[in-house]
Amino acid sequence: MTIKDEILELATKASEASREVAKLGSNIKNNALRLMADELEAAKVHLQEENEKDISAGEANGLTSAMLDRLRLSDKVIKSMADGLREVAALPDPVGEVLGIKKRPNGLQVGRVRIPLGVIGIIYESRPNVTADAAGLCLKSGNAVLLRGGSEAIHSNMAIAGVLAKACKTAGVPSSAIQVVPTVERAAVLEMLKLPELIDVIIPRGGEGLIRFVVENSKVPVIKHYKGVCHVFIDSAANLQMAEDIAFNAKVQRPGVCNSMETLLVDKKIAEEFLPRIYKKYKEAGVELRGCPLTKKILNEITDASEGDWGAEFLDLIIAVKVVEDMDDAIRHIEKYGSLHTESIVTDDYGRAQRFLRDVNSSTVMVNASTRFSDGFELGLGAEIGISTSKLHAFGPMGLEELTTKKFIVYGDGQIRE
Amino acid sequence: MTIKDEILELATKASEASREVAKLGSNIKNNALRLMADELEAAKVHLQEENEKDISAGEANGLTSAMLDRLRLSDKVIKSMADGLREVAALPDPVGEVLGIKKRPNGLQVGRVRIPLGVIGIIYESRPNVTADAAGLCLKSGNAVLLRGGSEAIHSNMAIAGVLAKACKTAGVPSSAIQVVPTVERAAVLEMLKLPELIDVIIPRGGEGLIRFVVENSKVPVIKHYKGVCHVFIDSAANLQMAEDIAFNAKVQRPGVCNSMETLLVDKKIAEEFLPRIYKKYKEAGVELRGCPLTKKILNEITDASEGDWGAEFLDLIIAVKVVEDMDDAIRHIEKYGSLHTESIVTDDYGRAQRFLRDVNSSTVMVNASTRFSDGFELGLGAEIGISTSKLHAFGPMGLEELTTKKFIVYGDGQIRE
Repeated sequence: MTIKDEILELATKASEASREVAKLGSNIKNNALRLMADELEAAKVHLQEENEKDISAGEANGLTSAMLDRLRLSDKVIKSMADGLREVAALPDPVGEVLGIKKRPNGLQVGRVRIPLGVIGIIYESRPNVTADAAGLCLKSGNAVLLRGGSEAIHSNMAIAGVLAKACKTAGVPSSAIQVVPTVERAAVLEMLKLPELIDVIIPRGGEGLIRFVVENSKVPVIKHYKGVCHVFIDSAANLQMAEDIAFNAKVQRPGVCNSMETLLVDKKIAEEFLPRIYKKYKEAGVELRGCPLTKKILNEITDASEGDWGAEFLDLIIAVKVVEDMDDAIRHIEKYGSLHTESIVTDDYGRAQRFLRDVNSSTVMVNASTRFSDGFELGLGAEIGISTSKLHAFGPMGLEELTTKKFIVYGDGQIRE
Repeated sequence: MTIKDEILELATKASEASREVAKLGSNIKNNALRLMADELEAAKVHLQEENEKDISAGEANGLTSAMLDRLRLSDKVIKSMADGLREVAALPDPVGEVLGIKKRPNGLQVGRVRIPLGVIGIIYESRPNVTADAAGLCLKSGNAVLLRGGSEAIHSNMAIAGVLAKACKTAGVPSSAIQVVPTVERAAVLEMLKLPELIDVIIPRGGEGLIRFVVENSKVPVIKHYKGVCHVFIDSAANLQMAEDIAFNAKVQRPGVCNSMETLLVDKKIAEEFLPRIYKKYKEAGVELRGCPLTKKILNEITDASEGDWGAEFLDLIIAVKVVEDMDDAIRHIEKYGSLHTESIVTDDYGRAQRFLRDVNSSTVMVNASTRFSDGFELGLGAEIGISTSKLHAFGPMGLEELTTKKFIVYGDGQIRE
């Protein structure tokens, strides 16, 4: 069978399964999720044997230790996949929720009801735990899922999918509700992107290169975020201790993720007082600062920021620092260099806090909090399938609801149009 | 200036304007909408002179009388554009609505607030009234709009846009919030579709050919509906008088629009009683019936339905009629041939009514009502920018809310992540 035919067959099976999954009651889905969790833990030895094949191949192919680390199905990762599935089982089921039925003057009762999207395609890179995490969220939201992981994780992904499919079958869920594309050929991704009649949305998860490839080539709608260039703005009316804590936490607590801060903006009125304080803490933590000329006047040991540093996603212990005229100047900087991910203001000024929340265009806007809270779990969605930095369908962290849509339902008693 | 540069300049101006429009208060927007309405009426003579240029060119180019009719800015059409703008002014402003702030265990207060999408691109065909209708909805929802109408309506569209832009300026709205692409070159559409950084969504309105062209070529997300193949299913427990009224109304009241019925499905248990009744009414109204073999056994004068008649969007006084085994058979037929637009069941059976609402996948599902109610105004959205038959972002008729998205807002008091 050609790759084209193979993907077409998988997508057709997913589309058929999606009709069944959409109708499943919450109990069946939750039982399946809990069984999936139990079976993953029970299959630990098998999963780790299969994972070892990927690890060995990765070592032979010269993957970095960071990449091998992401690839590894350690005991901890397996437990976390299982716990994740149990947590998703405990979340409310979004499917079937009826939103506000209203009566029209002619007596028609019109409402909307939440329904699954249908078939979700997930295209991701090296972490095999995404296989279980994404499958759980898609099943709970009544969707079928077609998973296409990185070629370097193929044995791990197939093993996980095998366990999940078996658990589904036992629990009364169509086993083709969760399928992993069983080929490492890159062409398989392209074939998925050509099937808008069978796949309702593609969610790519990985580096900017992967995401641009998917967007460039997809006939299926894509929900994505390219990168996270998050800003913290320290306002002139900030509590400077709070500002120090937030600026430190947002950069240092986990620098390699998209919701960490990449650029610190400081109001010039408090720059001379604030910058030396935060510099001391950053220095102790090994953070490299790259400053604008005004920052450099205050912290003369640090590196000059180049134009490329504004808007850079360092994902590392590096930060660009800029002294700004005022909040409007900060907002203009964010508009020019930001990535619509997450921005935070630290201030005790009521009016500016409210105006920052209103005028900043990003998908998450915060007052007096670390940007690191910008994920689905921390914001109360229960879990996260990804983050969208484009405005259509979803903007910001995406949970179960973002894997659904709404249809209109109309209760009539014989109405016809005049 | 090349077309590429021209479109880039228009889109850049729209993008800049969109930041301003997003912040406008409801009063300014509503005043602008009412002024736009007044000025359109005041400019009637000018609009009709410009329209006459399009009409003459259209006659010279051999447009059909139906096409010329759609093109004409009659007194009635101008009044209806003005009244439409006044109605939009009277609708609630969706922008800034805060949806359910919740407190997290760490004290963060997390909510979502409705914000405009940004820049909307509308690509449409011959009706110049779309220029005013779409501009009004986009402005009210805080968006900038770039309008690209049919080349045959270019003088009319430019004249309308000129009046609207002038009214905007007087009312304090940036005049580049509403722009018409001033060229008839087809290449202008392609250039719009290449600008995902400047245009947030494209809404094509017109025939299936236009829409497929846009979808095939767009790097900007597209919200569209290809066609409306609406079904009415007459259940065995239907009130046959109601069934007759609804089946007649859904086909005959306005056959040329997407929410009219194209296929009638009849449960075999009542087919012998029902079909002769509806046939009599259809025949009087000049409706051509194309029947399945079982229908033909009952109504032997009518034409045989060919495979192509199932799923056809006739937009005319033609209907395909099929006798089905039961509701499940009807649903399978809809799944196979439908376009996810609107389906209605006529029944007095409670269980089947509920199951039809649940199991039919279309964007609007009705019980005991004519499919002709499937539009934004009739369903209570106040107005309609279009209909989506794909599930992402919006599904079904789209009103003001569907021209917005939601961002997260977070009120903290110094929270950092552990």
